[in-house]
Amino acid sequence: MMSDWWNAPCRPLDETARARARARQDQLTKPRGALGRLESLAVELAAMQGSERPRVECVHIAVFAGDHGVVEEGVSAYPQAVTGQMLRNFVRGGAALSVLARRLGALLEVIDLGTVEPLQLDGVTHLRLGPGTANFTRTAAMSEEQLRQALAAGRDSAQRAAAGAAQLFIGGEMGIGNTTSASALAAVLLPRSPSLPVGPGTGLDADGLQHKLRVIQAALALHGSHCREPLEALRRLGGFEVAALVGAYLGCAQAGIPVLVDGFICSVAALCATRVNPGCRQWLVFAHRSAEPGHLAVLDALGAEPLLDLGLRLGEGSGAALAVPLLQQACALHDEMATFAEAAVSDRPA
Amino acid sequence: MMSDWWNAPCRPLDETARARARARQDQLTKPRGALGRLESLAVELAAMQGSERPRVECVHIAVFAGDHGVVEEGVSAYPQAVTGQMLRNFVRGGAALSVLARRLGALLEVIDLGTVEPLQLDGVTHLRLGPGTANFTRTAAMSEEQLRQALAAGRDSAQRAAAGAAQLFIGGEMGIGNTTSASALAAVLLPRSPSLPVGPGTGLDADGLQHKLRVIQAALALHGSHCREPLEALRRLGGFEVAALVGAYLGCAQAGIPVLVDGFICSVAALCATRVNPGCRQWLVFAHRSAEPGHLAVLDALGAEPLLDLGLRLGEGSGAALAVPLLQQACALHDEMATFAEAAVSDRPA
Repeated sequence: MMSDWWNAPCRPLDETARARARARQDQLTKPRGALGRLESLAVELAAMQGSERPRVECVHIAVFAGDHGVVEEGVSAYPQAVTGQMLRNFVRGGAALSVLARRLGALLEVIDLGTVEPLQLDGVTHLRLGPGTANFTRTAAMSEEQLRQALAAGRDSAQRAAAGAAQLFIGGEMGIGNTTSASALAAVLLPRSPSLPVGPGTGLDADGLQHKLRVIQAALALHGSHCREPLEALRRLGGFEVAALVGAYLGCAQAGIPVLVDGFICSVAALCATRVNPGCRQWLVFAHRSAEPGHLAVLDALGAEPLLDLGLRLGEGSGAALAVPLLQQACALHDEMATFAEAAVSDRPA
Repeated sequence: MMSDWWNAPCRPLDETARARARARQDQLTKPRGALGRLESLAVELAAMQGSERPRVECVHIAVFAGDHGVVEEGVSAYPQAVTGQMLRNFVRGGAALSVLARRLGALLEVIDLGTVEPLQLDGVTHLRLGPGTANFTRTAAMSEEQLRQALAAGRDSAQRAAAGAAQLFIGGEMGIGNTTSASALAAVLLPRSPSLPVGPGTGLDADGLQHKLRVIQAALALHGSHCREPLEALRRLGGFEVAALVGAYLGCAQAGIPVLVDGFICSVAALCATRVNPGCRQWLVFAHRSAEPGHLAVLDALGAEPLLDLGLRLGEGSGAALAVPLLQQACALHDEMATFAEAAVSDRPA
């Protein structure tokens, strides 16, 4: 695809705010470095928000849903109708992500990019780019126009987050079959390795996993040699919701909103986004290492140090929502702890 | 020491509540097991609280402080006056633990068991068992009476937590020199291993670490053969605040309050408590794997699976306070997610 909005520069980080935040950390009443990853997190957020004392109280969550043509190959433990059923569960408040968003007081957007059966649900934005993607073992998953619209759907969500003064963006996904899509996409984006980044998704058994592996190999045989450009790889092997995440991450990096990336599928979208526009990387914080086996290789390729490792494999954006309190606590400690001077506590001898 | 309150039985867990919570988890709208460690956490808390739907909104935090005679051997990067200075910082709200407790809406008790210089601070309970412990490279750290009082101080805190209907107890500690004490205690409680569980504490350099190691070896040479009984090991090598944590953990297990254990020093106290009364173990949840190198061996000996691994090495109870939102989110998901039936979402075929 030709150059377009996604190639525009990402916002640079604020190095003055970073230095000030670093200096403040070193004066707080604790041994230097004793808060570990929470110290670097507060300093990174300071550089992103351009503020010595960052805050993560206003969180924008967008969950993107779409169906996958490759499901007709029998790659999922759940029936395809679950994609649409879960859209209703998101807006009614019964999904894991809904519970966590409510607890955070976060705004939760639910965006339907195209389920197999058309839906009309209150509280869901129905963009409907098609009745799911095409089966990528036979043809490209998306047309160029569908890809362009899915990327724009993500960017538009990032721009709404910016308009709402969000201090953090979380993207989530729902789509039966989307670990198959993400695995195929990861396989062409990752450095060559002996094993494909494929796992059980929502819960395939050993036979199901072998079948999924063969389906992905068939897709790679068809598309692999046409996937040098990351957006072409996304068009051929991705899903509507994966493309929307790519657009959202790029849009956030351009608008200057820190992103908390969820698990395997979101990390594959993040990898794709950084291949499209490398300046995007520094706006991404990684929430957790999921139980999906391919996640580790994707995180390594991104140089990511995730915050949590709890054996999560739900998706939706739930792992990112679970990690938000750590960001909030890192900011509270950074903002509210006394300095050695304020508390009249002796620092160690220099 | 003769048998006493600490040998009274710990409360048994409620296996009916555990089974009901497990059954509920399996009906929630997610693939079974997809919330990983958060599922087992909700189920464990259900068994502890005797309720199918546990809650962790009312949190009782007690931070115990005391000075250590062994500091005269030059084992800490910080001056000993910091113990008392930090007591003031805790009650004034500038310490890491104060910030986190405030954010959680938790009650924070600050209990002074004996600093080198006597203190009188508003908001601190001064029990003052002595001007710090004795230097355990020369004699036992505590008398039998001091040990008994320190254990009782912890138990009394657990009983206040129970009287306040706390749903979770966190013990914290402050005491310059207490990683030296905890390392020596761990060395006699752990199965024999080629290396001592010793690390840099608040930030010793390589020379300082070698010196600390020699100090601990001297203490082990003096006391090691007298440490078969865990409470005698605690009396000879522990600190007032370490003993109070042991008493608090035993008191919580007897009163039926779930405990969230912080880092290295708290985990050594937990190990000691389980050696005194093994029924205590099932009331302990472990918050994090700290950066202090000895922590791993102590966690292994306890069969503990900590929730966080963020390179923390501050102590105070701060790592436990940081993990509380994970427990709260686990409970919220368990309580508020829709079941497959409620949401009319298709479960996978059996």
